[in-house]
Amino acid sequence: MRVDLNSDMGEGFGRWPLGDDGALLSIVSSANIACGFHAGDPSVMLSTLTMAARRGVSVGAHVSYRDLAGFGRRFMDVASDDLTADVAYQLSAIRGMARIAGTSVGYVKPHGALYNRIAADPVQAEAVVNALVRVDPGMALVTLPGSVVGDIAAKAGIRVIREAFADRAYTPQGALVSRRVPGAVITDVDQVAARVSRMVREGVVTADDGGDISIQADSVCVHGDSPGAVAMARAIRDRLVADGIDIVPFVDVASGGDRV
Amino acid sequence: MRVDLNSDMGEGFGRWPLGDDGALLSIVSSANIACGFHAGDPSVMLSTLTMAARRGVSVGAHVSYRDLAGFGRRFMDVASDDLTADVAYQLSAIRGMARIAGTSVGYVKPHGALYNRIAADPVQAEAVVNALVRVDPGMALVTLPGSVVGDIAAKAGIRVIREAFADRAYTPQGALVSRRVPGAVITDVDQVAARVSRMVREGVVTADDGGDISIQADSVCVHGDSPGAVAMARAIRDRLVADGIDIVPFVDVASGGDRV
Amino acid sequence: MRVDLNSDMGEGFGRWPLGDDGALLSIVSSANIACGFHAGDPSVMLSTLTMAARRGVSVGAHVSYRDLAGFGRRFMDVASDDLTADVAYQLSAIRGMARIAGTSVGYVKPHGALYNRIAADPVQAEAVVNALVRVDPGMALVTLPGSVVGDIAAKAGIRVIREAFADRAYTPQGALVSRRVPGAVITDVDQVAARVSRMVREGVVTADDGGDISIQADSVCVHGDSPGAVAMARAIRDRLVADGIDIVPFVDVASGGDRV
Amino acid sequence: MRVDLNSDMGEGFGRWPLGDDGALLSIVSSANIACGFHAGDPSVMLSTLTMAARRGVSVGAHVSYRDLAGFGRRFMDVASDDLTADVAYQLSAIRGMARIAGTSVGYVKPHGALYNRIAADPVQAEAVVNALVRVDPGMALVTLPGSVVGDIAAKAGIRVIREAFADRAYTPQGALVSRRVPGAVITDVDQVAARVSRMVREGVVTADDGGDISIQADSVCVHGDSPGAVAMARAIRDRLVADGIDIVPFVDVASGGDRV
Repeated sequence: MRVDLNSDMGEGFGRWPLGDDGALLSIVSSANIACGFHAGDPSVMLSTLTMAARRGVSVGAHVSYRDLAGFGRRFMDVASDDLTADVAYQLSAIRGMARIAGTSVGYVKPHGALYNRIAADPVQAEAVVNALVRVDPGMALVTLPGSVVGDIAAKAGIRVIREAFADRAYTPQGALVSRRVPGAVITDVDQVAARVSRMVREGVVTADDGGDISIQADSVCVHGDSPGAVAMARAIRDRLVADGIDIVPFVDVASGGDRV
Repeated sequence: MRVDLNSDMGEGFGRWPLGDDGALLSIVSSANIACGFHAGDPSVMLSTLTMAARRGVSVGAHVSYRDLAGFGRRFMDVASDDLTADVAYQLSAIRGMARIAGTSVGYVKPHGALYNRIAADPVQAEAVVNALVRVDPGMALVTLPGSVVGDIAAKAGIRVIREAFADRAYTPQGALVSRRVPGAVITDVDQVAARVSRMVREGVVTADDGGDISIQADSVCVHGDSPGAVAMARAIRDRLVADGIDIVPFVDVASGGDRV
Repeated sequence: MRVDLNSDMGEGFGRWPLGDDGALLSIVSSANIACGFHAGDPSVMLSTLTMAARRGVSVGAHVSYRDLAGFGRRFMDVASDDLTADVAYQLSAIRGMARIAGTSVGYVKPHGALYNRIAADPVQAEAVVNALVRVDPGMALVTLPGSVVGDIAAKAGIRVIREAFADRAYTPQGALVSRRVPGAVITDVDQVAARVSRMVREGVVTADDGGDISIQADSVCVHGDSPGAVAMARAIRDRLVADGIDIVPFVDVASGGDRV
Repeated sequence: MRVDLNSDMGEGFGRWPLGDDGALLSIVSSANIACGFHAGDPSVMLSTLTMAARRGVSVGAHVSYRDLAGFGRRFMDVASDDLTADVAYQLSAIRGMARIAGTSVGYVKPHGALYNRIAADPVQAEAVVNALVRVDPGMALVTLPGSVVGDIAAKAGIRVIREAFADRAYTPQGALVSRRVPGAVITDVDQVAARVSRMVREGVVTADDGGDISIQADSVCVHGDSPGAVAMARAIRDRLVADGIDIVPFVDVASGGDRV
């Protein structure tokens, strides 16, 4: 039995560090690396890619709206052609930087508000998929199970990776409970670790009404932007390993640079 | 007999257009395309690259300091590692975008203050050359004849293209007369066209003391950011053609995308 | 009889000029000046404010979402406190710059996507009004007649200026016809000039179904970002003057700097 | 006997916090607050100004080159008029925000590379002083003793505050030892506290050759961007208080908003 653990990395910018990427790289199998539009200047990108390459961790492009001040967390009504160009630019940049660092970009995970938007908005979803198709349709796309962008990507021949969130509560319909609702984020480390293990082993998770629901997770997202977050990520990994689950990336980690 | 004509393009940004790229593409053989750090958002880049590809014009990366507000015209005391990363990021981005547009990036021409600085500063010159070497040492570098960055690039095995300026006065030592000096920029169209033709045919230009000096120009830079500039560029081309000189790029124009 | 004519100005940024502010300042009575978030770097702001002060044209703050790449034309889902702070920052900056230039900021006109959004969104409208109230409730607000932000501002004791658009078609309900609809923008100069004159003299305009509707316009917006636009603006002014209408700002033009 | 302690604050940006401003505000008497060009978005500015106002800490404008990616630590060759406009814009913005927060800006301390540059470069120094004079010559300027900008400001009638650095080694000539030299930064807390106390009580400090030199410090700069830095700042304050020295700002803290 196996699963991928992914986490956001390389989210510093200039003078401002963010998160403990060094610790995370010994925990996760896939690193979502910022491309400069919500975080991640070129120096941060290059050093994070180099660290990931050395540790044998798979790397993905964490593409975003162009919004450093808002960290890519604010929806922006970007026209389709501009969004395609913005994503293609970020993908191009990180792919070249990855090759320098001795690795390659195996997948794309949209960040923040863009991730949420294209789960439901077919116009922006199409624009993002167009960028993938034009740059390299061999890259996988990480998204919520059942998302609109997942459907569009699949139709375009792109491999879709279904993602679950380790510390988030789910509704009986399988959606994430809004962060505005009390209990939306689960903070008990043992409980979170047990939930993730059960997701992988049984394909189920307990929803916020107490009932079990089915959940398909090719990759589970963990966080690393606080000391508590790193400890939780480590506990999740330890629990999975103890339960006999292999933590492996969903794409092969290239050793010799970009495949293109 | 042959020479390359190059011009800066794709220097709009968002709402702000700049220059008449459409007209220039019927005049020059090489297009220096902004990469987003001094000008050129992703949409502008993609459309300019696409136009250049359709017209069979060679494309180069017009890399810059990160300074939109100053259009890359202000020296910045960037640390070497950061400068290497900044240039590598821009090169990576435009190379990927060029492949989407059906062409490839054959050369690098640093822009504005960076161009001037690395003609004389070995530290920043080394940082820029390092970026080229790491991204693709097969790209040529456009610089002033005798520049420090040209020497460093040549030692690193990079092809160096010597550039002359069509409308600029030269000192008896072969340096450009400072723009602050009256007469530094020659505005008479016929005179400029005749000078360029003589540079190519005879390898000489009349310096500002009236004497002739030797000048080696693999490529001649023309401008297109005003109606008068486009007319002058066209006059230069017409004169060269009338004098039996072929206008051809110094690198082959790829038809099937990036060579890498 | 009197009316104000307003136009956007100071929308260059660094290397990129935009529009013919010099020509517009001899036409309009109020200048909406960009504050740096969608356009207008500090040098552009200062020179535009100085020109307006010399010509005796009233100045307003053209505040925007923080989006240079999109020229403030894309809706952004900014949190209320952040939006209030962003607008307060822009208002503070331009008020100080106006005082240096020998004038003062008499009003606020939100720009682009923000202007449209707060005509209908009470949350962002409230955030913008909060900024005005905190910075100086003596400044007027320019908005569409009947807009949500107008109601909120009026309740907060702010003077609300109702704006009409010279070259836009109106629905029978008095709303602007969407730019996506053919005929949304009227390009015949004489027709536009006649419409504006009738708006002022009779308080009516012909809607796109051919019927007349009532329209209350304290200020009419004209454009200046193309040669044709300036000519149309001048024709509107000439027609109004010929029809005996005075072109006067709706706020007094300060002569000795900020009133605060 | 009395002295001012100052520290940089409000240097977060969007998602990225920096330093422990809450702790510092109970230690220092003057807060240098970022204005958005090297750090400090409008929300951060407003909350930092509000905290400072509540704690009765004097506030100053920490103006910078426009360089978020480099945190204002890289020299930029900005033209004089542009530099004056950039500084005037920042001063205007923070003065308006300070009034909203119930305080006023009593002084200006240039940040990073700009601080260092104008200590010796008369052209950029003049440009910065021009901005102060135009916005409000009643604000004081914080700079190194003997700096070029201090002389220019004094001639323009601006009050000049001489600044010493708590943890930096000095040459026998009274200059700061370059950070590239081992021992440039003193890390022993007791030693630093003792040096600061002696600077204030005796007007001398031990230079890096072991001899005592004269030093005039109206204000001493302490740091707060690491847990160790805050502890050192607190130790300095405690030592000064124990030695009978009052920690008081060099400008009065306004209670009712901007004086203008």
